[in-house]
Amino acid sequence: MEFKLKPIGIVHSPFKKKEDIESKKYADSRGFDSIQGELEIFKEYEDGLKDIEGFSHLIVLFTFHRSEGYRLHTKPLLEDTLRGVFSTRSPNRPNPLGMTVVNVIKRKGNILKVSGIDMIEGTPILDIKPYTSRDQKSSIKLGWLKKRMKKTQKDKS
Amino acid sequence: MEFKLKPIGIVHSPFKKKEDIESKKYADSRGFDSIQGELEIFKEYEDGLKDIEGFSHLIVLFTFHRSEGYRLHTKPLLEDTLRGVFSTRSPNRPNPLGMTVVNVIKRKGNILKVSGIDMIEGTPILDIKPYTSRDQKSSIKLGWLKKRMKKTQKDKS
Repeated sequence: MEFKLKPIGIVHSPFKKKEDIESKKYADSRGFDSIQGELEIFKEYEDGLKDIEGFSHLIVLFTFHRSEGYRLHTKPLLEDTLRGVFSTRSPNRPNPLGMTVVNVIKRKGNILKVSGIDMIEGTPILDIKPYTSRDQKSSIKLGWLKKRMKKTQKDKS
Repeated sequence: MEFKLKPIGIVHSPFKKKEDIESKKYADSRGFDSIQGELEIFKEYEDGLKDIEGFSHLIVLFTFHRSEGYRLHTKPLLEDTLRGVFSTRSPNRPNPLGMTVVNVIKRKGNILKVSGIDMIEGTPILDIKPYTSRDQKSSIKLGWLKKRMKKTQKDKS
């Protein structure tokens, strides 16, 4: 069983290549909050953006198009210990799918200006969904990431 | 440009068909919190689950395998107004991809017992990722959903 997916748009990002993102300065849990970019939705899908301005945050599903294969045990960026790939956000995974929540700044036709970009220029977008109360979880446990990510669940952004 | 994806597992759910989910009683933002089920990860990917027990919440990416085409303007479940498909969580979308955050109850080998299930029995799983501080957004705006979803960002679950 296989599924075929096709891009509905493309990410425009200040990061031109993978190495631009792989930096300690973005390792913090709010590291990408200020990074701005654009989601260009192809004209044929523009009508599907109706009503989207009402939402402050969007879930973007995309492909890690520069991913090259995967291992089930992998060293996360800036780490020395091997972890199960499903307990990491590594781009090198069985299905190279990415998920990032972005903040909508404004919409202009088929272009969404957003912040919170952690994808590279040219990343193919597969889907956009509204981020809702259901996606907000509190009292989360962060496993091996605990020592790295600041606990920010009580922050008000 | 097309992408081929293959399932890494399958959802076991108390919901046997789409109609079982399409009920007013689940419309609340916490409607599925108590629904338990299992994520069966295929044996060949089991090693990728290492370290996953440390995380309380997981992001599950899956295909809406009962989706049948889409329209760019669509009436969300229980609603009368047409909305842009990307401002809804409708299963009928250009790429029929779903995203749900589940709570991990326990792991037994390649089986993850979880709560928060809103998928139907047999749903193909494409990816599992840890839910981290980066996925927690506060002060969110809910657009047309506002009147339906309770504002729960200040809840402690």
